[in-house]
Amino acid sequence: MGLIVQKFGGSSVKDAAHIRNVAQIIAQAYEAGNDVIAVLSAQGDTTDDLIRKANEINDHGSKREMDMLLSVGEQVSIALCAMALEKMGLPVVSLAAWQVGIFSTNVHTDARIRRIDEERVRTELDRRRIVLVAGFQGVDRQGDITTLGRGGSDTSAVALAAAFQADCCQIYTDVDGVYTTDPRIVPNAKKLDVISYDEMLELASQGANVLHNRSVELAKKYQVKLEVLSSLERKPGTQIREVAQVEKTNIAGIAKDTSIACMALVGLEHNPGIAFQVFDLLSRNHINVDIILQSIGRAGTKDITFTLHKKDLEDAEEILLERKDVLKFDHLETTERIGKVSLVGTGLLSNSGVAAKMFEALYEANINIQMINTSEIRMSVLLDEEDVDPAVRAIHAKFFQD
Amino acid sequence: MGLIVQKFGGSSVKDAAHIRNVAQIIAQAYEAGNDVIAVLSAQGDTTDDLIRKANEINDHGSKREMDMLLSVGEQVSIALCAMALEKMGLPVVSLAAWQVGIFSTNVHTDARIRRIDEERVRTELDRRRIVLVAGFQGVDRQGDITTLGRGGSDTSAVALAAAFQADCCQIYTDVDGVYTTDPRIVPNAKKLDVISYDEMLELASQGANVLHNRSVELAKKYQVKLEVLSSLERKPGTQIREVAQVEKTNIAGIAKDTSIACMALVGLEHNPGIAFQVFDLLSRNHINVDIILQSIGRAGTKDITFTLHKKDLEDAEEILLERKDVLKFDHLETTERIGKVSLVGTGLLSNSGVAAKMFEALYEANINIQMINTSEIRMSVLLDEEDVDPAVRAIHAKFFQD
Repeated sequence: MGLIVQKFGGSSVKDAAHIRNVAQIIAQAYEAGNDVIAVLSAQGDTTDDLIRKANEINDHGSKREMDMLLSVGEQVSIALCAMALEKMGLPVVSLAAWQVGIFSTNVHTDARIRRIDEERVRTELDRRRIVLVAGFQGVDRQGDITTLGRGGSDTSAVALAAAFQADCCQIYTDVDGVYTTDPRIVPNAKKLDVISYDEMLELASQGANVLHNRSVELAKKYQVKLEVLSSLERKPGTQIREVAQVEKTNIAGIAKDTSIACMALVGLEHNPGIAFQVFDLLSRNHINVDIILQSIGRAGTKDITFTLHKKDLEDAEEILLERKDVLKFDHLETTERIGKVSLVGTGLLSNSGVAAKMFEALYEANINIQMINTSEIRMSVLLDEEDVDPAVRAIHAKFFQD
Repeated sequence: MGLIVQKFGGSSVKDAAHIRNVAQIIAQAYEAGNDVIAVLSAQGDTTDDLIRKANEINDHGSKREMDMLLSVGEQVSIALCAMALEKMGLPVVSLAAWQVGIFSTNVHTDARIRRIDEERVRTELDRRRIVLVAGFQGVDRQGDITTLGRGGSDTSAVALAAAFQADCCQIYTDVDGVYTTDPRIVPNAKKLDVISYDEMLELASQGANVLHNRSVELAKKYQVKLEVLSSLERKPGTQIREVAQVEKTNIAGIAKDTSIACMALVGLEHNPGIAFQVFDLLSRNHINVDIILQSIGRAGTKDITFTLHKKDLEDAEEILLERKDVLKFDHLETTERIGKVSLVGTGLLSNSGVAAKMFEALYEANINIQMINTSEIRMSVLLDEEDVDPAVRAIHAKFFQD
């Protein structure tokens, strides 16, 4: 018996039947004696329908008005789900973010939660009511509606769990947990029972789309125990929490990311400050780079190669070419036909055998490595796009099926 | 130059093209140098769609959650219309009722406005922004969303016009004004340039569906100058305001109402308090009666006949039959096959010639009158349902075409 925060995504509430199912999951937690706060996303296609309506009128409407428009989706979900719980005879109240007091920054369409008021929700919980909260949204100091950007409902749920010191935060989704790799590529991928926040962060940012990084970072910061589980099957999912560190190397999983592109500045003068200048320039333009490689080029020049998100490629090219005279490079090379495969787990760096085993798997599969990048708990290789899936299969087989 | 409140109903904002048209009307008022507050209803079918969604899940959901659900419709309209105005390069902000501070009673689905905060709207107007407000909704003291019931958006507009002392309140609709009678029955019905609040109230409550009575009552109370006009044609509509009283009789129009039923308590004992008991009982059950007739029945008994709304007929029957022993009547008779036709205008009662002319028209058309009811500015006759349209035509011809 305690306080549970549950979060249900858009596919879990897409129609009346799914909403009834969600109501049953909530009811079960409530009837077991828990206080329950459930965070809901907009129904399946609602957001797309609203965006289409907006675009018919103005495809460059202000972000403030887009937030005003899109925030209705979650309000519809919580009101409908409240009615489903009422039909079951349970006491329930639905609350939009401004009614809870989920205060955010005023960066429309990408706001950050600043503070959550406790009063209204606490009052409702004390009355033994189930509290349904509209995910993805906040309210700024002026009283304007904001939305929290990608993965916003997960963030709402984790922030509520932190504010109310919930015993756990269950993220219900259409998969039943976090897997060692994408089961669509490796059918015998294995579901993990437990994974640490850091490992989950590496898996998520490397392209495992179960949970958005922001919510995992927030959960780590406030030590919120997360569980990812299926809204359709009633069985345990994957817990994400602080895992007691043991010396032993533990491989959590394999992630792939094909949303990246590669850019090379060829023929740079050998000037010590040049890398800083390049990446400072990109950073000031909100372009994140990931793997960076510096290599010696011809005739005393050097090349800098780095990866970035495909969507940023065009902007980065424009920005760098504008400064060609200052940065003094010969020319730019770019490719989008690449991908990244990452092995994630604790103690990777301290165990050189892991790297050897990974390279061996790739060698046996006849796959060329273009670049390598490592962190405390991740080892990533950059490959030709077409080699990505074969690489995932080969590495998975080597580490999980041997 | 001044402050104008404009209200656009559901059919005026039903799709992108209509929203663009509404934005042009608003822009025209703004560009003429006025401050503009525009109140919008939900798009055409939105409310019905939402109700259908709710009924799929629970056809007896709480009124609080229905308000939470239905209030999104107006929010979508104002956000979309704001984007249309942004596209025209105009400064605009959309505000839900809770953002304005339209405080209401907590009677969900039928709340009354208690108070309107001026601060936010005034700040926006001072910045020369167009302010779009979600109609039909309010917020109660606890911070819960309410809706204002039938004609709610008209009420929102008039209340805002009163709070901000607007120079006028324009109600845009799909007809171009108030007519002497329903043009579908009498094709040569005449549009009125001006009508008084009282005449409009009588016309509205007698079945002219242009404006809801609540908004006209509110406009009268705060002396808000109303204008009813078409959102599709740019031409003057009908003004509703205090009209200087002249001695001369002035016929405003003819209304019909076929939503009524008739009930007779037959064979009541001749007991002085009996009428009070009957109507007090109905009133306590929220059943309004309209025309009442008492007549002498057989053997020293009397009959009480009255009209009420068709939808209340069943309830009234049940309530009265339950008390048959206390009220001591012989039996109940009811009919739904009746209708009411009303002549509305100032100075009717003081001019007996008007009544004679009306009865003459009905006599010439061979129509029997069942009951008669008059007020200072209205003269109503109860007729067989099938006689209603011929009566409207006959009376209209007598007063407007002679």
